[in-house]
Amino acid sequence: MAGNTFGTIFKLTTFGESHGPAIGGVIDGCPANVEINIADVQVQLDRRKPGQSKITTQRKEEDTVEFLSGIFEGKSTGAPIGFIIRNKDQRSKDYSNIKDVYRPSHADYVYEQKYGIRDYRGGGRSSARETACRVVAGAIAQQILAKEGVRIQSYVSQIAHLELTDDYRDFDLERIEDNIVRCPSEELAQDMIALIDEVRKEGDSLGGIISCKITNPIVGLGEPVFDKLHADLGKAMLSINAVKGFEVGSGFGSVYLKGSEHNDSFEMDGEEITTSSNYSGGIQGGISNGENIEFSVAFKPVATIIKKQKTVDKNGNAVELEVKGRHDPCVVPRAVPIVDAMAALVMLDHLLRLKTVKL
Amino acid sequence: MAGNTFGTIFKLTTFGESHGPAIGGVIDGCPANVEINIADVQVQLDRRKPGQSKITTQRKEEDTVEFLSGIFEGKSTGAPIGFIIRNKDQRSKDYSNIKDVYRPSHADYVYEQKYGIRDYRGGGRSSARETACRVVAGAIAQQILAKEGVRIQSYVSQIAHLELTDDYRDFDLERIEDNIVRCPSEELAQDMIALIDEVRKEGDSLGGIISCKITNPIVGLGEPVFDKLHADLGKAMLSINAVKGFEVGSGFGSVYLKGSEHNDSFEMDGEEITTSSNYSGGIQGGISNGENIEFSVAFKPVATIIKKQKTVDKNGNAVELEVKGRHDPCVVPRAVPIVDAMAALVMLDHLLRLKTVKL
Amino acid sequence: MAGNTFGTIFKLTTFGESHGPAIGGVIDGCPANVEINIADVQVQLDRRKPGQSKITTQRKEEDTVEFLSGIFEGKSTGAPIGFIIRNKDQRSKDYSNIKDVYRPSHADYVYEQKYGIRDYRGGGRSSARETACRVVAGAIAQQILAKEGVRIQSYVSQIAHLELTDDYRDFDLERIEDNIVRCPSEELAQDMIALIDEVRKEGDSLGGIISCKITNPIVGLGEPVFDKLHADLGKAMLSINAVKGFEVGSGFGSVYLKGSEHNDSFEMDGEEITTSSNYSGGIQGGISNGENIEFSVAFKPVATIIKKQKTVDKNGNAVELEVKGRHDPCVVPRAVPIVDAMAALVMLDHLLRLKTVKL
Amino acid sequence: MAGNTFGTIFKLTTFGESHGPAIGGVIDGCPANVEINIADVQVQLDRRKPGQSKITTQRKEEDTVEFLSGIFEGKSTGAPIGFIIRNKDQRSKDYSNIKDVYRPSHADYVYEQKYGIRDYRGGGRSSARETACRVVAGAIAQQILAKEGVRIQSYVSQIAHLELTDDYRDFDLERIEDNIVRCPSEELAQDMIALIDEVRKEGDSLGGIISCKITNPIVGLGEPVFDKLHADLGKAMLSINAVKGFEVGSGFGSVYLKGSEHNDSFEMDGEEITTSSNYSGGIQGGISNGENIEFSVAFKPVATIIKKQKTVDKNGNAVELEVKGRHDPCVVPRAVPIVDAMAALVMLDHLLRLKTVKL
Repeated sequence: MAGNTFGTIFKLTTFGESHGPAIGGVIDGCPANVEINIADVQVQLDRRKPGQSKITTQRKEEDTVEFLSGIFEGKSTGAPIGFIIRNKDQRSKDYSNIKDVYRPSHADYVYEQKYGIRDYRGGGRSSARETACRVVAGAIAQQILAKEGVRIQSYVSQIAHLELTDDYRDFDLERIEDNIVRCPSEELAQDMIALIDEVRKEGDSLGGIISCKITNPIVGLGEPVFDKLHADLGKAMLSINAVKGFEVGSGFGSVYLKGSEHNDSFEMDGEEITTSSNYSGGIQGGISNGENIEFSVAFKPVATIIKKQKTVDKNGNAVELEVKGRHDPCVVPRAVPIVDAMAALVMLDHLLRLKTVKL
Repeated sequence: MAGNTFGTIFKLTTFGESHGPAIGGVIDGCPANVEINIADVQVQLDRRKPGQSKITTQRKEEDTVEFLSGIFEGKSTGAPIGFIIRNKDQRSKDYSNIKDVYRPSHADYVYEQKYGIRDYRGGGRSSARETACRVVAGAIAQQILAKEGVRIQSYVSQIAHLELTDDYRDFDLERIEDNIVRCPSEELAQDMIALIDEVRKEGDSLGGIISCKITNPIVGLGEPVFDKLHADLGKAMLSINAVKGFEVGSGFGSVYLKGSEHNDSFEMDGEEITTSSNYSGGIQGGISNGENIEFSVAFKPVATIIKKQKTVDKNGNAVELEVKGRHDPCVVPRAVPIVDAMAALVMLDHLLRLKTVKL
Repeated sequence: MAGNTFGTIFKLTTFGESHGPAIGGVIDGCPANVEINIADVQVQLDRRKPGQSKITTQRKEEDTVEFLSGIFEGKSTGAPIGFIIRNKDQRSKDYSNIKDVYRPSHADYVYEQKYGIRDYRGGGRSSARETACRVVAGAIAQQILAKEGVRIQSYVSQIAHLELTDDYRDFDLERIEDNIVRCPSEELAQDMIALIDEVRKEGDSLGGIISCKITNPIVGLGEPVFDKLHADLGKAMLSINAVKGFEVGSGFGSVYLKGSEHNDSFEMDGEEITTSSNYSGGIQGGISNGENIEFSVAFKPVATIIKKQKTVDKNGNAVELEVKGRHDPCVVPRAVPIVDAMAALVMLDHLLRLKTVKL
Repeated sequence: MAGNTFGTIFKLTTFGESHGPAIGGVIDGCPANVEINIADVQVQLDRRKPGQSKITTQRKEEDTVEFLSGIFEGKSTGAPIGFIIRNKDQRSKDYSNIKDVYRPSHADYVYEQKYGIRDYRGGGRSSARETACRVVAGAIAQQILAKEGVRIQSYVSQIAHLELTDDYRDFDLERIEDNIVRCPSEELAQDMIALIDEVRKEGDSLGGIISCKITNPIVGLGEPVFDKLHADLGKAMLSINAVKGFEVGSGFGSVYLKGSEHNDSFEMDGEEITTSSNYSGGIQGGISNGENIEFSVAFKPVATIIKKQKTVDKNGNAVELEVKGRHDPCVVPRAVPIVDAMAALVMLDHLLRLKTVKL
């Protein structure tokens, strides 16, 4: 039983390989009669697209989305929204030399074992190119969530050892796009860019952390006991290529506090109930409490590097691998819109699920 | 759309509140004609049950599982396995004073808002008592996985600042039950127990980390692109009460390494393909590669403490809360069988999913 | 992948065998904060229970439902509703002689082949005893639907060749319970009862048709293109034991009409749009149009008869079978509340699905 | 919660409107490493396409399928198979006059009410044009089933009052394509064609019945208690446009027989267990027993007719409707490959489900 659908009511199914004719997807369950701004969808895609800056892969893809259904005269109709993005700059020849070789920490070996067949060109289905489809659906979800006051803002909070130690509230998250690494601290951003550029020249790669703040006025999102809001956010993030960890609110740091320190006291803010702190990260008992949702996602350094590596081929022969395909020294900045998108899919799905809780 | 079912083929649906007549569940999709050892299921339940040692809550529940269907003459029949665990030591009076009060960092407030009604006795559905049902299903899953060579071993690797810094391979995980905190280092265990006992007297609580090693010879578990094995493991863990973070393999630590350092080289181990390191944590491209699966789960200090706390009631009045119910100073040791169980549900579900990949 | 769950938002999972300790189920997704009248649930169960009249099986089961969760102070809480019905009058000895014999047109053979193991006592999981759980869930669904003006009324319209040829509107469906065969025509009912009694004495069985009228003021139920309302109703009905056919509106008779005769013209009824005829059976394009929903369900004569029959055993030996268990000469009257229940599950599920179509 | 996905393991999601740029779909869960013959898929599409004979609509669509993913070097890869069919002969102007009018027995009114918006061009999403996507997926499913010895053969058994009364076994189902109405009796076919042609000239429409025989050597397909094989077949058929009824095996006729007449005795056929009759239609207790699966599907006369009709518009004004679009006097012959396709989706899905029943 395959796993190419995400969500329960607002559902995205994606398809497509890195070097096939097109990638695409179907959104089923998009609320009807809502305005969809296609230009704004493209804006999100452009934030993810390759070749956007000197620190990303030089593959050139326009990544223009073509909508095929479900939108009529600028509005969603309630019918499924099908869309495709044609692949254009495929240089499949680049990959012929790795047809029989298992690249270290790539999916080559496990795909071969699992399926008995593998489209080796550019990683085929395992390529992060697939995430462009998530961005399309996520962009639509964000447009709908905006009408309900929900705003998602992800940003790079760490690259390698370069960590944003100040509170994100000290920065203006509206200005994330001011630098190509999408870090709210302009100063730290310059260090990050310099570091990435250095590692790019080495033919190596770097990881980092994306943090996300969701301004969420809606109390009640999340479905106990298994589909807790942060459990679904966690799955969403962990399904993104190269992600190795997820934490919500106080996260791994929570283990250093006592309950009396960690509990978020309820207090009144005028007529509204609020909390004095937010170690919960906006989610309690798996359900949103109206405070900001905060989580972080760890990305490993991507496996594709230019440096020579040792590995084996299909027949068990030791080989030395020298990848010739284009290379992305640090995918973290390009992953910011993907984190936004996946967060939006979860938030909108739970918003629609909430509608069924009461008659 | 509620969320009380976990899994896609091996599916567990749970029900029951902390202070109702019983909790229970239904396992649908258990492979047919497999021996089920009910006594061994009870052993797992006993590892989770309250009152098992001086460092756990003193609520006394025998937690005896009664199977109602799906098992005939000691074997699964392919029919759904229904089971219940009667609640016995409910002291609902203990909770009458919190009927209208929102306990800090508890689910009281969000349940009230979400559902418009709340069984306040012992936290109702939000109580971790529900996890006993997961342990029942997980114990069955573990018995089945054992036949395929899959072995799950969770252990406490950190309580507050007391961290197991040595490699888990230096210890004998078979001996986890030798101490009541379930830490493989006997020495560290004693420190942890002393610390928990101290905090118990303060009426406060502590968090910690459970790590899990899965010996898994099966290559191919995990379904791209959304139901990657570690994404489903992450969701499973994040759905456990009090969990704030999840990481697989190198996890958050991966961001400090370069790709050339982090990549796991393939090499031959006799006729078998293996990897020289295991930063991937046994999962590549979302699919198990046959190496040990390794992940860690962060538990916050539980919200229920005896210390006085400030909060508000339903009507927005500030109140001082003094909880009188029984209290668990550190749930982490009792959560070890829950982590085992949830890991088993994911692993068996994916094992069955793998069966449908080829004709 | 097993199939013991019905519904997508209002979901029923059932478990239990005819001769195990209990049957039961879990309802997940019941709207929160709705009054549930447990006595009325029992009324529906009593309509289905064995031994209720001289024309049904003489197995004596009180069929008392015990609710274990999800209802607090008379209202649904939004948590899953678990319930069990203990089996009491099991005479398993009756079945020991058929342990190795495949009863004609029963599920014995296919269960043995499919699962490799079979609880042969009373048909195990394949027994229609399971439908009691459907009646419990359906009764709750009917209570909720009633608040929205939806009323489900099934009745026996045919037993063997005895067919209700008059329009159902000529009768008072409120009085279905006036006779034990649940046919709206008192006169025809007496003929049916006499016929069933005659066949009962022969040790044989009869089939029949149940028709259903749903008074449904809600326009918009049904989800194109696969989960059309009548497709889900059809599946619901076909999943009931002994059902061989389903038709909606004009059904099989539609093939004798031309489009110009069959089309239901729209016209105004005051301010409301209505149709001049109802060949559509209240559903157009798979979506309810606010007219009465009408469908019929064909039940075969049940397979269990007392008459001697030829068959084979496990080892391929020809045997002559003489069943000694209790016998139901015509299950159709007892199936009326089951049809009601399954219709209610579909209607409520689609009512909740409709809530997610618009923001 | 929308309903554009069919199946549980072999899953088809479709999208697209009659007059949008394209229709298409995604197949997720296609077994990996299986040869897919694209030319044979096109053959099935050609059997469904408009304009194929004088008795079908004259809309000209080549209906050429373009596969975008999931097939590599002629084989399925296990990745989702995305495909599109461009719409070419859209004459949307034809429909501008019905923009505000509710055509009788069409989905116009219910779509408008349900979604608050409607792509009125050619019926939009409610058009049977969508079924072309089902034929694509069904054709692939049939290719895979053929490897397991499963063969699906549907045929027209009735048009209006013209009914095939002889047993289908008296005819050669291989020769269905010999006449344009797809009736196995060449003589009856000629009568049917003449009748359809006559009604076409009147601007009216006719219904009919498609029967299906599935040669199925596999015992064990079907999942109690809700996903019985015939329940899923029934839902599949009822989801096809214009279908009003479904029956399996003896169907509605079963009510005229007694149990002793209707039961299918088991007997030996050499080493194999078989049944002496097949009133069960190859399915017992919801599970295939290895005999031929037989069912019938009733199609109403389609709603689109050229004759003038009375109806109302959006504003409640009575109007006289004269449709100018192209018109299909009897869709039944074109629906034969759709019935084949939906049957194949169900059969393959259950074949894959069966794989998970035992370890």
